[in-house]
Amino acid sequence: MNPSIRIDLVSDTATKPCTAMRQAMANAEVGDEQRGEDPTVNALNERVASLLGQERALFLPSGTMCNQIALAVHCRPGDEIIAASSAHIVGSEGAGAAVLAHSVIRTIASPDGIFTAEQLRSTLRPHRVKAPRQRVVAVEQTSNRGGGSVWPADVLQALIDEARGAGLLLHMDGARLMNAVVASGVDASLQAAPFDSVWLDLSKGLGCPVGGVLAGSADFIAEADVWKHRLGGAMRQAGILAAAGLYALDHNVARLAEDHANARRFAALLGEIPGVSLLNPNPHTNLVFFDVSASGHSAQAVGRHLLEDGVRIGIESSHVMRAVFHLDVDARQTTLAATSLRSALA
Amino acid sequence: MNPSIRIDLVSDTATKPCTAMRQAMANAEVGDEQRGEDPTVNALNERVASLLGQERALFLPSGTMCNQIALAVHCRPGDEIIAASSAHIVGSEGAGAAVLAHSVIRTIASPDGIFTAEQLRSTLRPHRVKAPRQRVVAVEQTSNRGGGSVWPADVLQALIDEARGAGLLLHMDGARLMNAVVASGVDASLQAAPFDSVWLDLSKGLGCPVGGVLAGSADFIAEADVWKHRLGGAMRQAGILAAAGLYALDHNVARLAEDHANARRFAALLGEIPGVSLLNPNPHTNLVFFDVSASGHSAQAVGRHLLEDGVRIGIESSHVMRAVFHLDVDARQTTLAATSLRSALA
Amino acid sequence: MNPSIRIDLVSDTATKPCTAMRQAMANAEVGDEQRGEDPTVNALNERVASLLGQERALFLPSGTMCNQIALAVHCRPGDEIIAASSAHIVGSEGAGAAVLAHSVIRTIASPDGIFTAEQLRSTLRPHRVKAPRQRVVAVEQTSNRGGGSVWPADVLQALIDEARGAGLLLHMDGARLMNAVVASGVDASLQAAPFDSVWLDLSKGLGCPVGGVLAGSADFIAEADVWKHRLGGAMRQAGILAAAGLYALDHNVARLAEDHANARRFAALLGEIPGVSLLNPNPHTNLVFFDVSASGHSAQAVGRHLLEDGVRIGIESSHVMRAVFHLDVDARQTTLAATSLRSALA
Amino acid sequence: MNPSIRIDLVSDTATKPCTAMRQAMANAEVGDEQRGEDPTVNALNERVASLLGQERALFLPSGTMCNQIALAVHCRPGDEIIAASSAHIVGSEGAGAAVLAHSVIRTIASPDGIFTAEQLRSTLRPHRVKAPRQRVVAVEQTSNRGGGSVWPADVLQALIDEARGAGLLLHMDGARLMNAVVASGVDASLQAAPFDSVWLDLSKGLGCPVGGVLAGSADFIAEADVWKHRLGGAMRQAGILAAAGLYALDHNVARLAEDHANARRFAALLGEIPGVSLLNPNPHTNLVFFDVSASGHSAQAVGRHLLEDGVRIGIESSHVMRAVFHLDVDARQTTLAATSLRSALA
Repeated sequence: MNPSIRIDLVSDTATKPCTAMRQAMANAEVGDEQRGEDPTVNALNERVASLLGQERALFLPSGTMCNQIALAVHCRPGDEIIAASSAHIVGSEGAGAAVLAHSVIRTIASPDGIFTAEQLRSTLRPHRVKAPRQRVVAVEQTSNRGGGSVWPADVLQALIDEARGAGLLLHMDGARLMNAVVASGVDASLQAAPFDSVWLDLSKGLGCPVGGVLAGSADFIAEADVWKHRLGGAMRQAGILAAAGLYALDHNVARLAEDHANARRFAALLGEIPGVSLLNPNPHTNLVFFDVSASGHSAQAVGRHLLEDGVRIGIESSHVMRAVFHLDVDARQTTLAATSLRSALA
Repeated sequence: MNPSIRIDLVSDTATKPCTAMRQAMANAEVGDEQRGEDPTVNALNERVASLLGQERALFLPSGTMCNQIALAVHCRPGDEIIAASSAHIVGSEGAGAAVLAHSVIRTIASPDGIFTAEQLRSTLRPHRVKAPRQRVVAVEQTSNRGGGSVWPADVLQALIDEARGAGLLLHMDGARLMNAVVASGVDASLQAAPFDSVWLDLSKGLGCPVGGVLAGSADFIAEADVWKHRLGGAMRQAGILAAAGLYALDHNVARLAEDHANARRFAALLGEIPGVSLLNPNPHTNLVFFDVSASGHSAQAVGRHLLEDGVRIGIESSHVMRAVFHLDVDARQTTLAATSLRSALA
Repeated sequence: MNPSIRIDLVSDTATKPCTAMRQAMANAEVGDEQRGEDPTVNALNERVASLLGQERALFLPSGTMCNQIALAVHCRPGDEIIAASSAHIVGSEGAGAAVLAHSVIRTIASPDGIFTAEQLRSTLRPHRVKAPRQRVVAVEQTSNRGGGSVWPADVLQALIDEARGAGLLLHMDGARLMNAVVASGVDASLQAAPFDSVWLDLSKGLGCPVGGVLAGSADFIAEADVWKHRLGGAMRQAGILAAAGLYALDHNVARLAEDHANARRFAALLGEIPGVSLLNPNPHTNLVFFDVSASGHSAQAVGRHLLEDGVRIGIESSHVMRAVFHLDVDARQTTLAATSLRSALA
Repeated sequence: MNPSIRIDLVSDTATKPCTAMRQAMANAEVGDEQRGEDPTVNALNERVASLLGQERALFLPSGTMCNQIALAVHCRPGDEIIAASSAHIVGSEGAGAAVLAHSVIRTIASPDGIFTAEQLRSTLRPHRVKAPRQRVVAVEQTSNRGGGSVWPADVLQALIDEARGAGLLLHMDGARLMNAVVASGVDASLQAAPFDSVWLDLSKGLGCPVGGVLAGSADFIAEADVWKHRLGGAMRQAGILAAAGLYALDHNVARLAEDHANARRFAALLGEIPGVSLLNPNPHTNLVFFDVSASGHSAQAVGRHLLEDGVRIGIESSHVMRAVFHLDVDARQTTLAATSLRSALA
């Protein structure tokens, strides 16, 4: 981060490990993860498997690797994955599904990144020898580009039923699943257990420096481990990193509610600024998307103005911006950021 | 073909070689194509290269292989191809772009399979390290699922200019390019020369049993030849097949106008049948798509009824049908097919 | 072929369809192969499946495609195929196993292309998460680069038992299987039935212009058909080509014995030429490899000299040549070729 | 590591971060690596680029990812990489070269993992359309399975010249390059600068918990960064890990000489034990391979006996063992391990 940035809303990946987390890392008991000998990694894997109602889990260096490995294990070359058009796997993983799983993603248009059993049904088709073979339905909980939206439990259940009925596998990109858990009050394992694969990101709102944890059945994880080695995701004394994950699960989950409150606070303040149009006026979780085109300013120009005040907000396009709330931003800073935005647009 | 089918409108791939074409094949001078020693294959390649205004051409066993090799040569793993959502490369080539070119296809929705420079521009974006890299724009001339529509010359030119300005390569799926040439009066080389790769299908309206011919620069064809061997498209005394291609270019191009007239005739007759709604009421070329849902019958039921009359029409979905006109269907049979359809819907 | 070549020993792929075969092709009953409607293709597939003791078969444009599709169906990305280092799939298929099956080939060194159960055993290893997963053993019957050698029945059976014991799949590249059948007197189905996939080449000694036929279980062929479409091997009225295959199975199998006799004749004549060293002095089938380095001439120079006499012999390296006997070369031409070689080396 | 293991010679990946290194990590200044904002990662990349005489460098979670990304950037599908048959990329990276670079590895047999310009030359061949295209020569410095052997400067230079003359790219797997530097006295940049890609492993003898650093030209690193994101190697506040790398480069390089001395000490002690046959009697660096078959014991049995003494030595096969010396093993422990081995074999 540029040292002059004092309030960084560009992403919840901007969170930095706090002193206590750093201490936990410095004190971690470690071993060679590749040999299954790192006790801290093992402890984290067991904890996340249990949290997500799955048999086993696998620590990986990033959420992108969690997604890519899950799809590579589930798919055979030529398969089709069904996902929202705004999904991270579609636009932000370097065409990994084509390169690693040799599969295509069929997208469902959805403003909030959530799609229904009925929408899924409309994409289903009988298998033809010439067409990609439909194999996996991928859900992003919460949906980032959908405004941090939370899939309602009944919508999710109906989708799961529809997918199962069609013989499809189910994958959950749970980068921000714990935000959904805190916002909805629906237990993580209730949400995650029906999926064939699901993962948590440690390096977003949970505040860790590095890592994601992928969970699934024992067979799935055994295959995922082969891919982990192939892609170079197998590390050594990774207990250093896993210690942060354990710390985060102890200390940084319940407090995600503060981030959600700050997002709502920010949205409310923006609602009063002329020239700002909120894309998700009632944020479910920690993301606020808004359009500044009515102000006559470009998002880039607004961004530069904010930086002069030490505030960074993400620029999504020439007119859309994204503010993300996380443990390094408090209520006061939220208000300051809104004030700075108001002045930038004045 | 089922022997009881007397009028087969299921596809122009149903065309069978006529006696004179079979004779040309039986008499073909041949050699080992893989060594460049088949004089008939060489003659066909030279003729198609010239026809399409390209440096060199390569005979291949199918149009799908033409598409797949072109994309594999143009792309590096992780690239993005931009095409109409109805394109053959999207839904009918077994996810080949993912499996062979390791690339994704970004689709542009378009009812008639044609998209404009402006639509292309709206998909362009600056390169980001996380996103697929935009590399190729693919055009299907005519657009099959778009109703056999012909890309107008000015629309095509503007698209080419936009793609070039963005540094993108251009590929033309010319499966039915000669239909577009006959329908529009615009020379094949005028249409094809600006493309980095373009191919003709011999086994559709041109009436050959097997093959497509891919054309491009000498460098492109050299790389395409490597892929031809890798995929198993390199044959031996393929002059037998190429002889049909030469015959077809001599005898079966101008007559495509008859197929277009039959398509218009069929559309006009269908326009008078209650319960039939034409999707392309003014067919540009040889394809007629229509919806029978207003009749209260499913496309499957209508198809079965037609088969009892010895008429086969393609079934696209539960309510959409496709009739394709070709050299094995004359004006009288066209009228008979429409009559049969009227009775099926009565 | 260069018109001035009168005796072409460069390969048995040089065979040209005879008049009767051409007539069979011209008269073939055809339909759309992709829809399963070509009766001649269907008849050929059934005949080859039966010949090879397999459930189903699939006509394809080349032997390379037979190999590549079989490996792609058998393997998951990251698997290992075990084959002789001289195998066609190692050096002559454009790294297809890596590109299409995403698998590696572990090679066993073998001068005659044949390897034993014991050699196979020495390559087996327990599965480690970091290593390629051993999946397929590939046999080439006859072994081309091994001198047209025939795998003895007991060697083959022991290998099959070893592979099965290790849980490996078995693939036979039967490009010249019928040569092995004629030379050994062991029925094709006896040799082929134990394999999970096996194919015949029609365009080598059998004298057809184009094609190979891949056989296996019904499930295997269903998957192979998906790959056939994906790679662009699905043709249309391919009955034209299949008719040649049926003709060849009727007329050109038993006569392979003549090619074998000519190969032995040629080897005997070469045995008397100073400066020639035979690599396979007792040819099992139709291939003769020899080294001319002791003559002081390079293979290239010898090849040029032969061409002046209208004789073409394959050049394998700076000092090794390969002569292949086939239905377009008779005993008299065999003697003439040896005479020409003697004079070239004089 | 099993707590009862007191002397762990299984690998130098067993090294654990010392207290000072842990402190450096806990105090690291960090930012979002993916945005180029982690100052510690940036510092490490600059330092390694300079150390290796390359333009730029890229921190990655493992050495396997360094290898795989380098090969994926250098190769196009269907290319050939030339390497020693014992190389890590051949047997220990999950067939990654086939899965990610879609390329084959042609192996050169070499007992010590080193091959000469002449051996390289014997694998070179003119390009044929059917054959894999030769693209990269890969060198492992030191060669792990070759006994930790160091490529002599003149052998390396001649190889580089030969490869360049043939138009091939050069890749160095420098997992233990610093061992080679310390053992040979030849500067790292002298060794590494001629290569198109080269990397250092931080998690072996250098004692860090996680990571490797890949270096090359600015263009190469830009492409490598795309693959880093695609494979999920892009982390967030990775400065925590990079701080260990900087610490190691300051404190843990020169001391590698102690590991080499211990390896020589161990080899000398083993030379006196009946039934032990050293595979590399004069270890160049920190690895000792030996065969216990003459003792009448299997390597597995010997390994179990050693474990009872709290000593772990690697088991390579039924009769070969590997001992690796590193910063967690001192001279006294080296002697103890040899004593334990003597008793195990008694």
